[in-house]
Amino acid sequence: MTKIFNDPAEFSDDQLEGFLDLYSDRLVGVPGGVISLPPKEPQVAVIVGGGSGHYPAFAGLVGPGFAAGAVVGNIFTSPSAAHVYSVAKAADQGKGVILTFGNYQGDIINFGIAAKMLNNEGIDTRIVVVKDDIASAPEFEKRRGIAGDFTVFKAMGAAAAAGKSIDEVERIGNLANERTRTLGVAFSGCTMPGADVPLFTVAEGQMGVGLGIHGEPGIRDEKRTSAEELGTMLTKAVLADVPENPGSRIGVIVNGLGTTKYEELFLLYRTIAPKLREAGYEIVDPEVGELVTSLDMGGVSLTVLWLDDELEEAWTAPAYACAYRKDPKPLDSIEKTYTAKVATISEDDQVEASAAATALATQVRKAAADIAELMREKEQYLGEIDAFAGDGDHGRGMVRGTEAAQEAIDNAPETAGPSQLLKLGGRAWAMMAGGTSGVLWGASLETAANTLDDAAESFAPEKAAEAVAAFADSMVTLGGAQIGDKTLLDSLLPFTEALGNSNSNLPTAWQEAAQIAVQKAEDTAVLSPKKGRARPLAEKSVGHPDPGATSMGMILTQLGTYFS
Amino acid sequence: MTKIFNDPAEFSDDQLEGFLDLYSDRLVGVPGGVISLPPKEPQVAVIVGGGSGHYPAFAGLVGPGFAAGAVVGNIFTSPSAAHVYSVAKAADQGKGVILTFGNYQGDIINFGIAAKMLNNEGIDTRIVVVKDDIASAPEFEKRRGIAGDFTVFKAMGAAAAAGKSIDEVERIGNLANERTRTLGVAFSGCTMPGADVPLFTVAEGQMGVGLGIHGEPGIRDEKRTSAEELGTMLTKAVLADVPENPGSRIGVIVNGLGTTKYEELFLLYRTIAPKLREAGYEIVDPEVGELVTSLDMGGVSLTVLWLDDELEEAWTAPAYACAYRKDPKPLDSIEKTYTAKVATISEDDQVEASAAATALATQVRKAAADIAELMREKEQYLGEIDAFAGDGDHGRGMVRGTEAAQEAIDNAPETAGPSQLLKLGGRAWAMMAGGTSGVLWGASLETAANTLDDAAESFAPEKAAEAVAAFADSMVTLGGAQIGDKTLLDSLLPFTEALGNSNSNLPTAWQEAAQIAVQKAEDTAVLSPKKGRARPLAEKSVGHPDPGATSMGMILTQLGTYFS
Repeated sequence: MTKIFNDPAEFSDDQLEGFLDLYSDRLVGVPGGVISLPPKEPQVAVIVGGGSGHYPAFAGLVGPGFAAGAVVGNIFTSPSAAHVYSVAKAADQGKGVILTFGNYQGDIINFGIAAKMLNNEGIDTRIVVVKDDIASAPEFEKRRGIAGDFTVFKAMGAAAAAGKSIDEVERIGNLANERTRTLGVAFSGCTMPGADVPLFTVAEGQMGVGLGIHGEPGIRDEKRTSAEELGTMLTKAVLADVPENPGSRIGVIVNGLGTTKYEELFLLYRTIAPKLREAGYEIVDPEVGELVTSLDMGGVSLTVLWLDDELEEAWTAPAYACAYRKDPKPLDSIEKTYTAKVATISEDDQVEASAAATALATQVRKAAADIAELMREKEQYLGEIDAFAGDGDHGRGMVRGTEAAQEAIDNAPETAGPSQLLKLGGRAWAMMAGGTSGVLWGASLETAANTLDDAAESFAPEKAAEAVAAFADSMVTLGGAQIGDKTLLDSLLPFTEALGNSNSNLPTAWQEAAQIAVQKAEDTAVLSPKKGRARPLAEKSVGHPDPGATSMGMILTQLGTYFS
Repeated sequence: MTKIFNDPAEFSDDQLEGFLDLYSDRLVGVPGGVISLPPKEPQVAVIVGGGSGHYPAFAGLVGPGFAAGAVVGNIFTSPSAAHVYSVAKAADQGKGVILTFGNYQGDIINFGIAAKMLNNEGIDTRIVVVKDDIASAPEFEKRRGIAGDFTVFKAMGAAAAAGKSIDEVERIGNLANERTRTLGVAFSGCTMPGADVPLFTVAEGQMGVGLGIHGEPGIRDEKRTSAEELGTMLTKAVLADVPENPGSRIGVIVNGLGTTKYEELFLLYRTIAPKLREAGYEIVDPEVGELVTSLDMGGVSLTVLWLDDELEEAWTAPAYACAYRKDPKPLDSIEKTYTAKVATISEDDQVEASAAATALATQVRKAAADIAELMREKEQYLGEIDAFAGDGDHGRGMVRGTEAAQEAIDNAPETAGPSQLLKLGGRAWAMMAGGTSGVLWGASLETAANTLDDAAESFAPEKAAEAVAAFADSMVTLGGAQIGDKTLLDSLLPFTEALGNSNSNLPTAWQEAAQIAVQKAEDTAVLSPKKGRARPLAEKSVGHPDPGATSMGMILTQLGTYFS
């Protein structure tokens, strides 16, 4: 929803003023829009336009190698004929003018009248109307222009910058238009500045297939699918509408409408690119990002431009518009033939394990397997209690970490002692788990491992308390938290203290301490919210135990079973 | 809300895969993140990172002149120490490594451990922690890193690309950090992939001042203000936290968090830039856009980097990262000293008006004034009925158009006849109103004007019907709509027909026809929705008259008063 404005009625003019201030080193404002400072060599002036609300289209596409000017209407409203005339007249360099825009009635009329006015004055003016949206009509001539604006404008901008004649630029623009297809889906409608309801809504779990970019909803609603299914659907539909003599090379755009963000677009491209290649196409200079938007609309579209030699030359040509900059020259400064070094953490020299150490190592291997299994069992529960104050990934993080540790330990040489095994397990845990708790567990296991000597002839029970103390110290030092902060320390530190102070034999002492740890973990439910968390969520955590303290209690309890 | 994903738990890895495919000509994936293909001349490797969900930060900032690599954690989750180590090791070019990231506990631990591992192996590794968020703590050392990541990373990337030593790059990074301040506001929280509630919410009409970029809400909620007030608040707050020896030149970033779109950011910049200049600063290479985001969070931040000579050199240096490309060279191809031609539409030669024409002209002048007044009275009502099926701007458009027509007519020479006046009025209407109805009214008035001869000795009553018929024909031809489409034709065409067929004298015929027009306009309330409109809104239009047909009826009725 649009939140930043003064008088909503002046939104379009106000934002244009800021835009012109921002790019005053390269653009000039004229009545009705914006033009680029003219090139030193006169060119055909490609004038793009339509209503505003589609940035980077249209004003963001003005600059060397792209549009010579943009007519800026009010939001989703065609600019007036006089404003088209004004921008074109200011941008004309004596080589003729091309007015290009999407296929909408208001634009057809206003740009059409302006073209008449310009031609009457002897300025050779042509019109290229973009019609890429395959969902908007079966007949090509009736189709709307959406993200395909970009491929058509880019083709003409490059042709003009190459010094081609107006006949050539017009021909290349129409060629790009005939070879461009787009299909999009809408997840949510956009809201006009000052309005409190969106222009349309999409039911939760649904998506509108065949979106427009002016608040037109999709032509039909479908159940929202996985990225994989969405990418498949879009790819199939666009490739089904293949132009004549398609060839095997294509330009591709995955375009975000406004609130569908970059990571989502990359994720979708991951599905689309292989499918296009499977279909026998080579992808040339793909673009994934926000190129033709619709205010804060949620949605995405796939555009394919079937290339031939001259379209590929235009598609790959440099451009330096405000919102679109391409000039691969800087990439010449990098080594194109290079294989990245894959880093492996150097292993310490392994100590030959004593008989006692080998016996203990067997226990460590069993524990590693059992604990990974335990975390798999508890993953869902740990995720649920984490979701109250966090992002709900604690269970998964613990599974990732303990499984990585188990695998590293399984793969260790049979002769490895407990210290070596715990080191390898700890490193693997830190490597795979990420986040804060993963690295704390991993690094602290390594610290604990360092208290053990694989060459020792025997392991006194006190060694256990010593290793645990080292583990706990590492947790405190690295984590920087304190008891009562609702972290794993709330169960670990009472455990360590109880184990250290106990006079019972190790199995009993460990089990008693583990019971305390479990109890203290449950007690964290009454502690106040974690610091630094998003408020509403943190408040929800009161009444629920801390996931880190809880998993710690579970693991300590499990470990107690190996001493009997 | 994030809508495109497969397994939410794999979101970060999946999106990175797509990203690497997209930029495979310049980037290489390594365990834990991404590195640039190395430069031909070895440089200090600046490694940026943290959790994902902030694109273009962090992976989008990898490339010549910027970062050598990015460590990519899960969403809002620190990457593991091993992954930091892996990326740094792969990116190291023998000139040392700088690990740089925002001031968050998980990153401090993981990057810190990795730095130890790298230094142990003899790779000179330094750490630069970004602390720009003035809202997060009064003490600089405790502050979070948010959009200021960008200025600090950019400074070091430029220094490294310039071949500076690791000591120099580290020093410049710390200098940029000490001279960067950011304050942001949140309008809405972001939603994690797969989650159905945002990490936090902001009450309608409120904004959270002092946002974080990991779902941390603002430190205090305030009433949402106009863009003007928001810009003033942000500017004052950031300038109040001025560093030592500020100087008079600053780099500026207006950063969108994800769903606060470009037009809004430009609009805000329009308020901020003048205030920074009033404070005596010169703005150098401002950046307005999405540089450090937080998934689909709504919000914006202002960052100021106080420049000195070496920081300005770094801030303005070229860079060619995936998501940030800057190399002003192409601008050398444009004429820097240029004043845009402001186009004026050429006037036809004026015909000396006859006595009869002059008399009629007086009526036209009066009508122009009365109709503009009438539209001002009806603006709100016309906007209300337009809002049911459209964007609610019909009233405003009619006021703009009729006022422009009146002004042009008022400024016409006293000797101008009715044809000349209607031509001038029509052109001004089309010029100022924009949209579809504005240009239809303007162009059709001109067509009507052409049926009148200012030199004529007398004007027969039939002339009125003739002019109206020409006006209606133009509306039909240009507009391409049909009767029953719920447009102004639904009142205009019945009027024209009635006027043409009437045997009464003109005043009576006109008034009778106008009554029919008004009735037919009311009848449009029962017509089915306009085609091509957003569905939920279009359905709402049933039961409400069409605004275009309604204003047409009002104006025709008004015109009837000049014939008695």
